[in-house]
Amino acid sequence: MDELLSQIRSPEELRRLSHQQLTQLAAEIREALCRLASTRTAHFASNLGVVELTLALHTTFDFRQDRLIWDTGHQVYPHKLVTGRYNRFFTMRTKGGLMGYPNPAESIFDLFMTGHAGTSVSALLGLKCGDDLLRPEEGRHCVAVVGDGALACGVVYEAMNNAGGLKKKLIVVLNDNKMSICPRTGGLAEYLDRLRMTRSYANFKQELSTFLHRLPLIGDTAERFVTQVKDAMKAGLLGGMFFEELGFHYLGPVDGHNIRQLQKYLAMSRDYDRPVLLHVVTEKGHGFQPAAADPTSFHTPAPFQRENGTEVRFCKVSARSYTEVMRDAIMDQMRRNPKAAAIVAAMCQGNMLEPVREAFPNRFFDVGICESHAVAFAAGLAKAGMRPIVDIYSTFLQRSYDQIFQEAALQNLPVTMTLDRAGLVGPDGPTHHGCFDLAYLRHLPNLVIMAPGDELDVAPMLDLALRLDAPTAIRYPKTTAEIVQRTPAPMEYGKAEVLSWGTDGMIIACGTLLPECVRAARRLREEGLSVGVINARFVKPLDTDTILRAVQECAWVLTVEEGCLPGGFGSAVLEAANEAGIDARRIRRLGIPDRFIEHGERAELLADLGLDSTGIVGTARELAGRTAGQTPPLPRLAVSGPKSESAAR
Amino acid sequence: MDELLSQIRSPEELRRLSHQQLTQLAAEIREALCRLASTRTAHFASNLGVVELTLALHTTFDFRQDRLIWDTGHQVYPHKLVTGRYNRFFTMRTKGGLMGYPNPAESIFDLFMTGHAGTSVSALLGLKCGDDLLRPEEGRHCVAVVGDGALACGVVYEAMNNAGGLKKKLIVVLNDNKMSICPRTGGLAEYLDRLRMTRSYANFKQELSTFLHRLPLIGDTAERFVTQVKDAMKAGLLGGMFFEELGFHYLGPVDGHNIRQLQKYLAMSRDYDRPVLLHVVTEKGHGFQPAAADPTSFHTPAPFQRENGTEVRFCKVSARSYTEVMRDAIMDQMRRNPKAAAIVAAMCQGNMLEPVREAFPNRFFDVGICESHAVAFAAGLAKAGMRPIVDIYSTFLQRSYDQIFQEAALQNLPVTMTLDRAGLVGPDGPTHHGCFDLAYLRHLPNLVIMAPGDELDVAPMLDLALRLDAPTAIRYPKTTAEIVQRTPAPMEYGKAEVLSWGTDGMIIACGTLLPECVRAARRLREEGLSVGVINARFVKPLDTDTILRAVQECAWVLTVEEGCLPGGFGSAVLEAANEAGIDARRIRRLGIPDRFIEHGERAELLADLGLDSTGIVGTARELAGRTAGQTPPLPRLAVSGPKSESAAR
Repeated sequence: MDELLSQIRSPEELRRLSHQQLTQLAAEIREALCRLASTRTAHFASNLGVVELTLALHTTFDFRQDRLIWDTGHQVYPHKLVTGRYNRFFTMRTKGGLMGYPNPAESIFDLFMTGHAGTSVSALLGLKCGDDLLRPEEGRHCVAVVGDGALACGVVYEAMNNAGGLKKKLIVVLNDNKMSICPRTGGLAEYLDRLRMTRSYANFKQELSTFLHRLPLIGDTAERFVTQVKDAMKAGLLGGMFFEELGFHYLGPVDGHNIRQLQKYLAMSRDYDRPVLLHVVTEKGHGFQPAAADPTSFHTPAPFQRENGTEVRFCKVSARSYTEVMRDAIMDQMRRNPKAAAIVAAMCQGNMLEPVREAFPNRFFDVGICESHAVAFAAGLAKAGMRPIVDIYSTFLQRSYDQIFQEAALQNLPVTMTLDRAGLVGPDGPTHHGCFDLAYLRHLPNLVIMAPGDELDVAPMLDLALRLDAPTAIRYPKTTAEIVQRTPAPMEYGKAEVLSWGTDGMIIACGTLLPECVRAARRLREEGLSVGVINARFVKPLDTDTILRAVQECAWVLTVEEGCLPGGFGSAVLEAANEAGIDARRIRRLGIPDRFIEHGERAELLADLGLDSTGIVGTARELAGRTAGQTPPLPRLAVSGPKSESAAR
Repeated sequence: MDELLSQIRSPEELRRLSHQQLTQLAAEIREALCRLASTRTAHFASNLGVVELTLALHTTFDFRQDRLIWDTGHQVYPHKLVTGRYNRFFTMRTKGGLMGYPNPAESIFDLFMTGHAGTSVSALLGLKCGDDLLRPEEGRHCVAVVGDGALACGVVYEAMNNAGGLKKKLIVVLNDNKMSICPRTGGLAEYLDRLRMTRSYANFKQELSTFLHRLPLIGDTAERFVTQVKDAMKAGLLGGMFFEELGFHYLGPVDGHNIRQLQKYLAMSRDYDRPVLLHVVTEKGHGFQPAAADPTSFHTPAPFQRENGTEVRFCKVSARSYTEVMRDAIMDQMRRNPKAAAIVAAMCQGNMLEPVREAFPNRFFDVGICESHAVAFAAGLAKAGMRPIVDIYSTFLQRSYDQIFQEAALQNLPVTMTLDRAGLVGPDGPTHHGCFDLAYLRHLPNLVIMAPGDELDVAPMLDLALRLDAPTAIRYPKTTAEIVQRTPAPMEYGKAEVLSWGTDGMIIACGTLLPECVRAARRLREEGLSVGVINARFVKPLDTDTILRAVQECAWVLTVEEGCLPGGFGSAVLEAANEAGIDARRIRRLGIPDRFIEHGERAELLADLGLDSTGIVGTARELAGRTAGQTPPLPRLAVSGPKSESAAR
């Protein structure tokens, strides 16, 4: 097994392999990818698609010197396999193991940690300009691999426009697999379809040249045009006019699974002295039939088992996630409210909104990987009288910060943003953790910010959001939904929900760590402490009445949030206490500290940060140690839900 | 004077004017613009450029129903003049007067408050989709006017790509004046130059048609191509292929100062049933020779007087601004450090970096209105070993939030960001106030954040930033620089500067309100209170030793910042006190409250918010009233600088 692959310790060794060996290696890499994907959830189809491209890149360039950036770096697994990380490959996405994205701490061959799409060309242009200033004699080549999905990102266009203007020698490899994660959309997608249907450049060029040579001059009108005609025809017929007009030389389309052809075109690209866009056509999931047939499902599939080599049986996925709970709430709003509209940024699958797309095609908009546009577009919809819901990952909404400011908050338009994967996302790691949303949203005037405490809060919060005349954000994590058994208090604007009142201490949960807080309170009660729990629900406006009453009446108050401590929910509580002139020494804040958090399972990471019930109990005990405890009767709170037993370690 | 203009109460009335009258009206509008610009600083050249376009738009469409968004709304003055705001026109940009940008609160003809460039097409597409869903029978037309400078913004491209894919009937008027504020850059700029040089569409179309008709068939090769040839030639020759490939029909270029031609083309655009890009060529500053000759200086000129109708004498501008102080510091770094590089986003003039551009053309990069790209590009430069300085307005850096996160902070690359116009910018108002930077930056790990207390801090801070191995932000306001007379403490990483220690209270100034704080302390001392002043210098890492010592030793501590209170500097102080277990009731925070601040002179706005020395004294007196005061000797601190006497009201 892995006869060749296991021997590859660095990319130089690839250059000593014959074409036949490279082909065998490609097969071994695919086999390794399948083995990994059958053990745990990992990016799969996109990696199958770039096996040959990876080998062609490393045999054409020397990336010890030359520069390579993988845009949206989840397609980096083959690259990791041939850059000295074969031995650690099966630790991928586990805590302490390889990261599922490029990681400069792992290898000199990983220049940038890239998880958000579209910035590779900018960074590459920076590298190129820096190299030209600092080491012009070395003539390092600069290559970015950009997916066609990422091509919809505005920042790619900004960078290409800049590079075209500067006429810098860059190679942008457009990895065109017709997909982002879902099939991509937009005018440019249709354009790429047309390009892909044109003949291969090499044959065509000869034919065109012959034709142009034979073009007769037919009088004055023609004569005046003839130079322009030739230019126009060349660009129009050979394709790539779009890129040519940004200042790039267009090459392609090239078969992305033909190593020899890739090498030939990469070498050709290398020899131009201006920006080149090399259009490579790949098949997402190539070489593994089930993935090629359904690349969306196989983007990050659940672990599966191969049967007879091609049939696939997915391992069972457990109960409902918050993503599904919110999806159902959105579906319900779409049914009840003809003004409701749903907007996603190429994440229809991740957000599990396919049923909404199918049921309400006219009010469903997938704008592509364009988060900035998504929010401004939603503001336009809101201005026209619609009630748009932008369903988006917390970390990707960072791209929309300025549009949330100008188009939503400043105009005070009722744009609802549902922030999925807020908090620690687990194996995707630091580029994807949604830690910062409370801090980057909380200071924007007019914005209302909510965090459901459990599954039961989700639908009422969305319902409230769609009735408010203000921009609203609702954040929830990537995990299985839980229910805190109770008769929930009605969802009221700016009101927290008091689950129980404690004379010793109070835990104020901001978001879905509520069940952990409830479990912690129960354990503390068993130890003889009277500890109550508040479900904050609102980050903005904060329910200062309830929260400050707790601060004044109880010996200690512990705020718990799955978000960064600086500027977050706990900070809002401190601000409120300060404004009210209340001693805040009784308040202790638990949350994510001021550093980037590694990858690993979400439960592992929460435990490490003291954000599970054990950690909360530990902090509470410490706080209680500073004060005398009393034990009045506490209303019993049961926690149910799929994960409750296992999580209540 | 203003014979016709003064009679126009709504755009309907324009439609009753003859062509000759419209021409006269255009002249009157220009005259009104000149009168305004001679009394105060206002956007000028861009407004002179769109006079005819404004009249053509309002005579072709009915924007009581139809939708009009002015991108980067500073070109909206003629629009304000003809939409019922003539009588208030000369209150423009004064407190309580008209805003210098579209303002929905002023008029139904202003749909979005737009100050940041490029989002108009997104918002317009949202309006269009909303109108199609809610009122399809009305057939409202949707028009955005986008400058060619804004065309470099990624979000415009995202929106056009989306609109092209949806095939929605939109009209994007490209107002091509070859400028953003400075001459624009990038591959697309060259493309527009080529487009502009092609003949006018109308004549050309006929000639091309004739030519294509006469194109003979010359054998097999030709025969196979002929359809493709015709398409390619049409697009290539008629221009606009770039836009066509995004799914837009391209019309133009059209003379933007010919009302009849504009009306004809706008009507033509209106009758297409898919997205149209109408390329209008205007001259920035048209109709006023000095402005047309130097549109950069006349973008927002200082008040000037006309002599003999064309000669211009600018009113004297007073002493050095922080912008100039930072420019000089950047220039100095560029001289001393061959690795230093300067990056601007189309704001070379606003940032006053022309001398840097001239002295170091190889290390100066104007990327256009592309803030997202600017930061990612700088990260690439830093990775290559350079020490990039991104010189940018605080409010526009909001566009880069996600790149600061991923490309700078996550990679911990030494990108220095100098945030000009941080705090209240004055007459530009809420789209331009740089209130949020401390709050949107403070939670990002690895980032170092500084705010100079006065002019003397600026150069040492930049020097320190360029020696740190971390991303760094330095923020300073749009105002005249001041100097607090003292021997400044050396600039040390994470260290505040204690100017004086007070036994009654301490004022901790974060940033250039320091002189106001010093003046306030002096007045309080005259009243018998011992009040000290700390120049915080660092927002992150916070000098907790010094600051918490003040909190513990003094009866009260007042934090003063020209930034939003939620999540800002004062909030960081509260967090630090909380972590140290210190009673924070002695701390009072002054800053910008949680609402959008209107336009007006910066000094007026600061006074309104209690952030001038009078306001600080008032708050301090109130705090002192709660505690007993002592009066030990206080070291004398003199404040000098151009504004010190007048500002020390």
